[in-house]
Amino acid sequence: MSDLKNKTILTVACTGAWPKKEDSPYIPITPQEEAEEIIKCWEAGASIAHIHVRDPETFGASMNFDQFAKTVEIVRANTDIVINLTTSGGLGVPDELRMKPFQELKPEISSFDCGTMNWQDNAIFENSPQFLEKLGYAMQEADVKPEIEIFDMGMIENAARLVKKGALVGPVHFQFVIGVLGGMAATPENLFTLADYAEKLHPGCTWGALGVGRGHLPVMLAAMSRNGHLRVGMEDNLLFKKGQLATSNVEFVERTKRMLAEIDREIASPDDARAILNLKNCNTKKK
Amino acid sequence: MSDLKNKTILTVACTGAWPKKEDSPYIPITPQEEAEEIIKCWEAGASIAHIHVRDPETFGASMNFDQFAKTVEIVRANTDIVINLTTSGGLGVPDELRMKPFQELKPEISSFDCGTMNWQDNAIFENSPQFLEKLGYAMQEADVKPEIEIFDMGMIENAARLVKKGALVGPVHFQFVIGVLGGMAATPENLFTLADYAEKLHPGCTWGALGVGRGHLPVMLAAMSRNGHLRVGMEDNLLFKKGQLATSNVEFVERTKRMLAEIDREIASPDDARAILNLKNCNTKKK
Amino acid sequence: MSDLKNKTILTVACTGAWPKKEDSPYIPITPQEEAEEIIKCWEAGASIAHIHVRDPETFGASMNFDQFAKTVEIVRANTDIVINLTTSGGLGVPDELRMKPFQELKPEISSFDCGTMNWQDNAIFENSPQFLEKLGYAMQEADVKPEIEIFDMGMIENAARLVKKGALVGPVHFQFVIGVLGGMAATPENLFTLADYAEKLHPGCTWGALGVGRGHLPVMLAAMSRNGHLRVGMEDNLLFKKGQLATSNVEFVERTKRMLAEIDREIASPDDARAILNLKNCNTKKK
Amino acid sequence: MSDLKNKTILTVACTGAWPKKEDSPYIPITPQEEAEEIIKCWEAGASIAHIHVRDPETFGASMNFDQFAKTVEIVRANTDIVINLTTSGGLGVPDELRMKPFQELKPEISSFDCGTMNWQDNAIFENSPQFLEKLGYAMQEADVKPEIEIFDMGMIENAARLVKKGALVGPVHFQFVIGVLGGMAATPENLFTLADYAEKLHPGCTWGALGVGRGHLPVMLAAMSRNGHLRVGMEDNLLFKKGQLATSNVEFVERTKRMLAEIDREIASPDDARAILNLKNCNTKKK
Ligand SMILES: [Zn+2]
Ligand SMILES: [Zn+2]
Ligand SMILES: [Zn+2]
Ligand SMILES: [Zn+2]
Repeated sequence: MSDLKNKTILTVACTGAWPKKEDSPYIPITPQEEAEEIIKCWEAGASIAHIHVRDPETFGASMNFDQFAKTVEIVRANTDIVINLTTSGGLGVPDELRMKPFQELKPEISSFDCGTMNWQDNAIFENSPQFLEKLGYAMQEADVKPEIEIFDMGMIENAARLVKKGALVGPVHFQFVIGVLGGMAATPENLFTLADYAEKLHPGCTWGALGVGRGHLPVMLAAMSRNGHLRVGMEDNLLFKKGQLATSNVEFVERTKRMLAEIDREIASPDDARAILNLKNCNTKKK
Repeated sequence: MSDLKNKTILTVACTGAWPKKEDSPYIPITPQEEAEEIIKCWEAGASIAHIHVRDPETFGASMNFDQFAKTVEIVRANTDIVINLTTSGGLGVPDELRMKPFQELKPEISSFDCGTMNWQDNAIFENSPQFLEKLGYAMQEADVKPEIEIFDMGMIENAARLVKKGALVGPVHFQFVIGVLGGMAATPENLFTLADYAEKLHPGCTWGALGVGRGHLPVMLAAMSRNGHLRVGMEDNLLFKKGQLATSNVEFVERTKRMLAEIDREIASPDDARAILNLKNCNTKKK
Repeated sequence: MSDLKNKTILTVACTGAWPKKEDSPYIPITPQEEAEEIIKCWEAGASIAHIHVRDPETFGASMNFDQFAKTVEIVRANTDIVINLTTSGGLGVPDELRMKPFQELKPEISSFDCGTMNWQDNAIFENSPQFLEKLGYAMQEADVKPEIEIFDMGMIENAARLVKKGALVGPVHFQFVIGVLGGMAATPENLFTLADYAEKLHPGCTWGALGVGRGHLPVMLAAMSRNGHLRVGMEDNLLFKKGQLATSNVEFVERTKRMLAEIDREIASPDDARAILNLKNCNTKKK
Repeated sequence: MSDLKNKTILTVACTGAWPKKEDSPYIPITPQEEAEEIIKCWEAGASIAHIHVRDPETFGASMNFDQFAKTVEIVRANTDIVINLTTSGGLGVPDELRMKPFQELKPEISSFDCGTMNWQDNAIFENSPQFLEKLGYAMQEADVKPEIEIFDMGMIENAARLVKKGALVGPVHFQFVIGVLGGMAATPENLFTLADYAEKLHPGCTWGALGVGRGHLPVMLAAMSRNGHLRVGMEDNLLFKKGQLATSNVEFVERTKRMLAEIDREIASPDDARAILNLKNCNTKKK
């Protein structure tokens, strides 16, 4: 593990909750497919795997515990990648099902969507104040680091309130997720607005960023310009470039690796990421 | 009606959904009380009355139609103030009840809360994409101008989407409401972030602003510095100054009038506001 | 001296280098006139007098030492106002003449124009790196607090360099002077850009602001919204309002006092200002 | 010439006014050396060559006309690269010598340093209002496009004034040069502040950016995130990466080309650049 200042954590989000094989035939859906994809991304250098699972029959968004367990088992057996389990696999899922995967499987990180908002044109993405408070304490109890997903400015305030209450513990780690209608748009300017505000309100925080869809590359460049951490993958964006589907999440990992190399930086190894984020629960069988 | 460039629209929000007599004995609650307060604010120069009503028995937040009808009747009989009826009198109210007051009573303006967010520490303030689209068309049909309340950056995106769909029609009018946990905090810097973004995404828009609670005066000064329109009243802030309850909403109106006079501006008369915002439905009996 | 957090330092700049009796018959030009004006502003509550003098024959910009001495003598004999002597009375003045007034007369504050820029359409306002370094050490030696005048973003960098070198000593005090062509324009947005940057680069700094000319009131409101300190006076602006000359600098002081009272703040007394800025050299005869 | 929206203009500044062989043995100094370097950069894909010359004896900063003539002649004979001649080869050069190269040699572009500032710790970089006005008209007369170099916010105001006067003609082209002490620091945030302001004050403008020294790569990424044009070369930065001198300006061109390819963009050909910037005076012998 060399100088951590020169390392960028790269999260790969291979599957997500929404894209279907009809959207891209290359998206991994089953635990076996997703785990194999994660293994390849890890071989290519990814630091963290952000994991969603799908309903085994409909392949739609799901918090199916068994699917999480299967995916995690294969990944842990074959890699030392940092595991990050979503708590937001679908809309309208009961609190207990959202929390069970991290409570039982003890990943090092879980996503923490820090507020409520409209989701695109069709739904409400609910994360009530009461749920967030409960979630924060549950993550502390499970030694899981919250990846605080920020879709809009007010969520940075919510995080500050939760820190004050003790439900979150600093230094916090933010993931700025922009480009979902209902939250902020995926522009470099918006990323800077969020990063400036988070750094002001949460001194000592760390952060990563991603733009959903067309804003993916501009937001990645803007984040790189400030040494922010990065996330790529089919959860956020199916296209490798205009008019061309990515045939594997590995393509995104490799592009990011090349871009970081051009500016004389490296992707953080899983252990680098553990050191940067001060993670616990490293349950990989590879170490 | 003289030069409109020199006029600032002042909305008074006398009652709101939440404060109780226990919080301030001076808050008007019944239709009679609220209407009398509005009449006095109009005499003091207010341009617009933003009206909430309360449940006649519990005095809690309500969309009780009869209470709206009673309040409006008295106000119209005694003033030519512009009437702005809330569509957000309480949480969890069915869509139809939220819309009925403006559909039946035909005010010139109604509030349009342009997204969903957590509300303080205890609830979700729901305005789903589907509701917002329905609401926009309903306001068009009723010739009611939407006062697009913006609590966070993403709501400005939502408004852009609704304009694109036709549910909102430009030039739009925004009310920046900051200081509610779940949305942005009530700081001058946040107001500028919102105003800059709204002016960029919605060229030709008009806007007003208010800070809830302690940020009330700093946000008012910041808005005045950019010639934004203003809102005052017990809905937003019960204190006239630190440690001192306002004994009437008129105190806020008069202070604002004095402050505008110091910078050689005037409160817009109701008719000035009608011209600035291009309002229809002027049903006052005073004209 | 009560709670300093609630106090706003008000500097009055009665004369400046440029305006002539032809521009406004009310502008004080001679030491006697200026001192009398300062006395009246002090009686009205001003905290600090920023003093320029004029050539006794041409009434043009000048660093004439005797004129400074005469003005200061009268002011000290009659008030306890904080004295702030310019170091920029005209363009192209030799360094020694720019420094002599503060070196000999030992005011509590002197202006420190922290960089070079074009001045309007017609000249260069020179403050070379070498001069600034010399000036900083000279002020330290004379126990004079530099009022670091900032006309553009780069001057905040210059100040940081001088702090690093030891020529300036923190916590520094900035005066944002916007509205002079060659530097930034007098807009609320520009003031926020400067204040944000100064607060980031110079933690613990204090600052005041003024807009030259038409931007005077918008910049004052924007500064007030963030509890910045203020400067008024005929150096910056001859008009009390559109189309109406101020007949005395006292009018500006009194307006500012009224505006601060509306937001429940007070003008800092001279002694309050001494405490806020940690001043030495209090040589008034009134104490 | 394909879709210009997908093209980024890359200027290479091989020599600059200041670096010496002692700083880097790889820097081209003589007309022959610089021209050969430009030819190689052109072969690698650079769009524009920004040219300085050195005194033939001291190798210091210079506006020596013959050196410009020699350099331009070789470049024009061997490439169709767009030629951009500096007007700022050294400090304290008489106006006529600064203008003669573009007046006589008729490049397509010349640099236009849009204000005066301190230069590092040791000098004033003078561009008085009078000089700028004269320079603007002289460039119009010579059909030379001004590359308006912006080191600080106030220079954007200066440009607006010159446009209003007619000395500059829109749509203007800016080069944001940050990282020189006296102007703004080379940070991504500062670049965004400048770009936001320029786009607001000069609708329809085009812009490029560069960070001097250590900020080179962060500023380049930030500019790329907003599809700004770019400049690289030893004038701005001698190091290819930390601790490693670039052995040729070509290294910078090739890195930029690779980085643009990763985001599915291309360097503009010289003819693309001519179309984007609407250039005249194409005097290359290669066409
Ligand atoms: Zn996810
Ligand atoms: Zn309301
Ligand atoms: Zn002065
Ligand atoms: Zn140059």
